[in-house]
Amino acid sequence: MSSSVSPLAPKTVPDMPVIAGVRLATAEAGIRYKNRTDVLLAVMDKGTAVAGVFTKSKCPSAPVEWCRAKLKGGKARALVVNSGNANAFTGKTGRASTALTAKIAAKAVGCSESEIFLASTGVIGEPLDATKFDGVLGRLAETAEPGDYLAAARAIMTTDTFPKVATATVKLGKAKVTINGMAKGAGMIAPDMATMLSFIFTDAPIAPAALQALLKAGVEDTFNAVTIDGDTSTSDTLLAFATGAAAAHGAPKISRASDPRLKTFVKAFNQVLANLAEQVARDGEGARKLVRITVEGAKTKVSARKIAMSIANSPLVKTAIAGEDANWGRVVMAVGKAGEPADRDKLSISFNGIRVAKSGARDPSYDEAQVSEAMKAPEIAILVSLGLGKGRDRVMTCDLTKEYVAINGDYRS
Amino acid sequence: MSSSVSPLAPKTVPDMPVIAGVRLATAEAGIRYKNRTDVLLAVMDKGTAVAGVFTKSKCPSAPVEWCRAKLKGGKARALVVNSGNANAFTGKTGRASTALTAKIAAKAVGCSESEIFLASTGVIGEPLDATKFDGVLGRLAETAEPGDYLAAARAIMTTDTFPKVATATVKLGKAKVTINGMAKGAGMIAPDMATMLSFIFTDAPIAPAALQALLKAGVEDTFNAVTIDGDTSTSDTLLAFATGAAAAHGAPKISRASDPRLKTFVKAFNQVLANLAEQVARDGEGARKLVRITVEGAKTKVSARKIAMSIANSPLVKTAIAGEDANWGRVVMAVGKAGEPADRDKLSISFNGIRVAKSGARDPSYDEAQVSEAMKAPEIAILVSLGLGKGRDRVMTCDLTKEYVAINGDYRS
Repeated sequence: MSSSVSPLAPKTVPDMPVIAGVRLATAEAGIRYKNRTDVLLAVMDKGTAVAGVFTKSKCPSAPVEWCRAKLKGGKARALVVNSGNANAFTGKTGRASTALTAKIAAKAVGCSESEIFLASTGVIGEPLDATKFDGVLGRLAETAEPGDYLAAARAIMTTDTFPKVATATVKLGKAKVTINGMAKGAGMIAPDMATMLSFIFTDAPIAPAALQALLKAGVEDTFNAVTIDGDTSTSDTLLAFATGAAAAHGAPKISRASDPRLKTFVKAFNQVLANLAEQVARDGEGARKLVRITVEGAKTKVSARKIAMSIANSPLVKTAIAGEDANWGRVVMAVGKAGEPADRDKLSISFNGIRVAKSGARDPSYDEAQVSEAMKAPEIAILVSLGLGKGRDRVMTCDLTKEYVAINGDYRS
Repeated sequence: MSSSVSPLAPKTVPDMPVIAGVRLATAEAGIRYKNRTDVLLAVMDKGTAVAGVFTKSKCPSAPVEWCRAKLKGGKARALVVNSGNANAFTGKTGRASTALTAKIAAKAVGCSESEIFLASTGVIGEPLDATKFDGVLGRLAETAEPGDYLAAARAIMTTDTFPKVATATVKLGKAKVTINGMAKGAGMIAPDMATMLSFIFTDAPIAPAALQALLKAGVEDTFNAVTIDGDTSTSDTLLAFATGAAAAHGAPKISRASDPRLKTFVKAFNQVLANLAEQVARDGEGARKLVRITVEGAKTKVSARKIAMSIANSPLVKTAIAGEDANWGRVVMAVGKAGEPADRDKLSISFNGIRVAKSGARDPSYDEAQVSEAMKAPEIAILVSLGLGKGRDRVMTCDLTKEYVAINGDYRS
């Protein structure tokens, strides 16, 4: 949808290896977009474990409700993702549409409907005509190949300005295992809605409960630590699939997330999540600067997270960064409004390593010209030291520009 | 600071009567601005009761801390307000500055320092040179007159585009009493900070504890139900002063807020607060539309407030309104993220009286052209019916325009 790539897009795209047990195919189903792919089918071998985390919205989309229900089985054979229509706030029609999509996919793949996982992103409130998948999914199932992950990432884009993929290869026991991930970001356009979708694939043999525990823990400091505008989609979906194919060349079967053999794997898994989450922030609507916010010296990590999120979601802080102003006063404001323990007179604030405030007042030693120069950088690090305890946390966001308002408000004109 | 008056400014300004026992004076102290008044002194007769509510920020300004401490005495003889410097995040210097200001004011008025109330708005993090008040406050105390409330409201403006005053005259017992109020809004400009200041004056004889109870109750559905961007200032201050002068012509002395004779007064008092709060929303930075959000059918009023605030603070909802789009999908999103009980399939949403969504889906009966026309109005009413219970609440906000980003982000260029 967007014509120019975000200036914060990664300079290089990784080569994505294949994952044994996963086959991908994309198509143009013409759901909304023209001349671009808008359906992804991922077919997984039998025995694939699945885990998922979803939006906390009290008004989730029909596909989110479908996935939540099917997750109990712990097994997946296929994932169907469409862009262009989120199938959100579509009432009974929406539920019927997910059921029909799953039925078509199950027939195409040759499995139970309860092994089909669904995600939709795009316009909301419009009924999704699932009959469009009829035929398409059958063809995709026949032509699915081990894979082009970048093409898959492209098919699920909406207002994203670049496809988002990440990969890692590590040892599990003595066997090599691979983790591939793709994501689409927080983009939206009239009357589309913010949706973050991400899918992780691995050939590691990890049981559903262990995979779920890994995913739940991993998301906390990655996807849950990224915010664009504080708004929460009805459709946010993160699914992980473990085919277990690496067991054939000696990878140990893992049934508990606490298994010590998982240590290296967990690190790589979390890095893939972190990498994708950062790419989502880098593609924030209208974003010109990536902002990393660290809060230290809080009473607890939870308290540090709340304060960091209060700063990250403050329109005043975000517009100041867009204006290349090290406006620590607005950071103090955001610390104050978080409602967490904070003592103004112990507060220190730095922008890109330059301390501008300390002990409850302007740092007399800082050089305005030096700070102004530092604020021109495409990445801004804000460090807030509360001086109260050992709680520390980090979150990521982007600046708030006129382009954000234009993308989200001007589309009618 | 701003050159053009908000298009949402009230078309008429009320004639402000005098309040017996209150005298006002303004001056150009040259704190930051040139060629405009920036200090207000209000002198109250002996026996004036005072009440106050303040920002919930954990990092309040020095004047807020001063007022909170002095409120315990319940008596006021003078209020000193300066614009141009908020004396916030100024550490020990800030505390010394408030103490010196109070000392100068107490000498000028001839009272105890504990009867002096202070408010500052403007740049933060800059030491406020209180010696600038020396001489100025003495002259103001000598020249203070019953008054020009509009001139007073002008002296406390920062980025406000119009002065904000309101008045009401009602019976208390058989005596006529008057309530005057003034406010300054949420405007801010580099590196100034959002500050809402409001001051209420009445000649009604109301004891401090009763006045405090009235103010605390009154603020809930007025100032606390208005949001511009969800950010909270370090300096928000609302003070009420009751001189008691109306007792001389027969107004009964009120010692309890629950006194039935107060009924009409309370209504008028709350109307003054509501009027001022609305003017603050009408002067939101870059605002082109006033937005009234009503949530009904929630489990409780508290739940309705949380959902209404979630909608009011959503950048996606606010940019959609700026774009004149009845984007009910974003309203659903904001309902969902509030975390309060909500059932998507029972949700109805109207914009300016036109129902666009019902029972969890687009309302099939609505006419897009009619809604588009309605969205061009300068005032937008959003009604969300949850269909769960009897909880109902209203909040007010404004749209989010590119001008907001420009005012808060572009000031450097």
